[in-house]
Amino acid sequence: MSEFELIRHHFSHIGGQRADVALGVGDDCALLRVPQGYELAASIDTLVAGVHFFPDCDPEGLGHKSLTVGLSDLAAMGAEPAWATLALTLPDADTAWLDAFSFGFARLAGRYGVALIGGDLTRGPLTITVQVQGLVPTATAILRRGARPGDLVCVSGTLGDAGLALRLLNAGESVSEFLRGRLERPTPRVELGLALRGTATAMIDLSDGLAADLAHILAASGVGAELRLPDLPLSRAVSERLAADPDWGLPLASGDDYELCFCVPERKRTRIMALAERFGIRIQAVGRVQAETGLRCLLEDGSIWELIRDQGQSGYDHFPDAS
Amino acid sequence: MSEFELIRHHFSHIGGQRADVALGVGDDCALLRVPQGYELAASIDTLVAGVHFFPDCDPEGLGHKSLTVGLSDLAAMGAEPAWATLALTLPDADTAWLDAFSFGFARLAGRYGVALIGGDLTRGPLTITVQVQGLVPTATAILRRGARPGDLVCVSGTLGDAGLALRLLNAGESVSEFLRGRLERPTPRVELGLALRGTATAMIDLSDGLAADLAHILAASGVGAELRLPDLPLSRAVSERLAADPDWGLPLASGDDYELCFCVPERKRTRIMALAERFGIRIQAVGRVQAETGLRCLLEDGSIWELIRDQGQSGYDHFPDAS
Repeated sequence: MSEFELIRHHFSHIGGQRADVALGVGDDCALLRVPQGYELAASIDTLVAGVHFFPDCDPEGLGHKSLTVGLSDLAAMGAEPAWATLALTLPDADTAWLDAFSFGFARLAGRYGVALIGGDLTRGPLTITVQVQGLVPTATAILRRGARPGDLVCVSGTLGDAGLALRLLNAGESVSEFLRGRLERPTPRVELGLALRGTATAMIDLSDGLAADLAHILAASGVGAELRLPDLPLSRAVSERLAADPDWGLPLASGDDYELCFCVPERKRTRIMALAERFGIRIQAVGRVQAETGLRCLLEDGSIWELIRDQGQSGYDHFPDAS
Repeated sequence: MSEFELIRHHFSHIGGQRADVALGVGDDCALLRVPQGYELAASIDTLVAGVHFFPDCDPEGLGHKSLTVGLSDLAAMGAEPAWATLALTLPDADTAWLDAFSFGFARLAGRYGVALIGGDLTRGPLTITVQVQGLVPTATAILRRGARPGDLVCVSGTLGDAGLALRLLNAGESVSEFLRGRLERPTPRVELGLALRGTATAMIDLSDGLAADLAHILAASGVGAELRLPDLPLSRAVSERLAADPDWGLPLASGDDYELCFCVPERKRTRIMALAERFGIRIQAVGRVQAETGLRCLLEDGSIWELIRDQGQSGYDHFPDAS
């Protein structure tokens, strides 16, 4: 198969059924229709072999995860997923790998009705870039900049699972199916993100760790926050690890959680708990927005736990030492 | 500077002035507004160091070219450029390199009023992915599938200049400023593409070479064509090379021309020539669409010149041997 046949065989079938796709894969551009009264939300992300994933990782999971990253960004705006493009750079045309990768991508795309409307397949070091686009009624998207003093800081799911999986894999230790799933096949919180429109005052998805990602909300909103570390939602695996080694960097500053962090006024607490029940997702209030800028992480006894930037505990940064 | 500071410093200023950008760089997604009565045209392309460009090439030119690739796709649909996203993977955070790259990108973006609305900066082997988006009045985009028997096949500019530059550089020979410019800083034919709406029946941009790209139009339209090789528009440099070595693969099957190839009814010939004059761009009729499928390349004496696929003469293919 040539480059064009590979694309046709593996990717041209993914979600071609949307009425708003006037023209899909196969011309110089796709042609898309945005309904009146909606804004288009767009986000692009790259995963690099050896940086974001192990080069020999399960390709089906990688197809899934490469789309999750973008869907999680759409969720964080309260936008409904619509279209994706995929730029895939491969060292060689391994059709078994492509079968598995495209299957993982397609299954997640199908679950959210996402059409793959274009892409590029090139030869080179394994790198995956996905741009997702979604739709949100005009002026209803949830931005980072709306947090107000007094708001609750909430997170979905549990924190640090993917980070723990990565630490164990890097140490050559065994990893449970649960932890591996959290690292390799995270679930984007699309339904929750949509349901938080009109309720959350600010939202972000957790890709670099709660401390760094919440800091973006705080900076954009011109506020600060206090987190109560004992309230962080943890899986049993992460709880046990923390009991043995009290390193809060694990739940606070590991990447790849793909949970949502959002702020809501105190009076919305009941609605939030109803959403948690409706979607079967744990939602936990972990702190409160304050007028004083900065992020304060409080231990059980009220003392402050210090994030140590030099040890990467403030979140993942590709170029920490750039000058 | 951290990853986020690098993005802010080098990229956040590029074209933030469009009224249709409700929210630009700096949140989980950008938010964009598509005017009523318009379709959105979208295209994504990747350039890989060592595959699409020399790793040590001029970064300013690379910034220019990485946007040209996408703008050329928009031109080929007759779409007006609007927004771009940039996913940049770098081995290290060389700020001089980033200064030059972003300058080249920004200058071309400014020329066409393109806003950079998002991106991702990651560490890894040098790879550049750009998604461009443009606007086109509903149902007026120029597709590949509209060519009809009897149409003229036209191309803009000259063919094979970038291919000749690449051959000379690969051979360690000197390259003229003209040829280097055609390879490193190609001009997307945006104005011409827009002006061809309502005139061209089919269009594609030349990124893989005329033979391969025209073949896409022919396949999509269910037709064939005859090209008259002596009519191919050639620069003096390529003409002289062909006189010394009559290898038509140079103008027919070299990549990176970034010219437009389009089909028009014979009766539009006068309008086409008027457009050429208006934009100061050479436009040449090089053949004719025929009902019989396949592409026939005729030499001066009427004999057929055979493209040799094994020598890559049918155009660039990243995975020619994939199985």
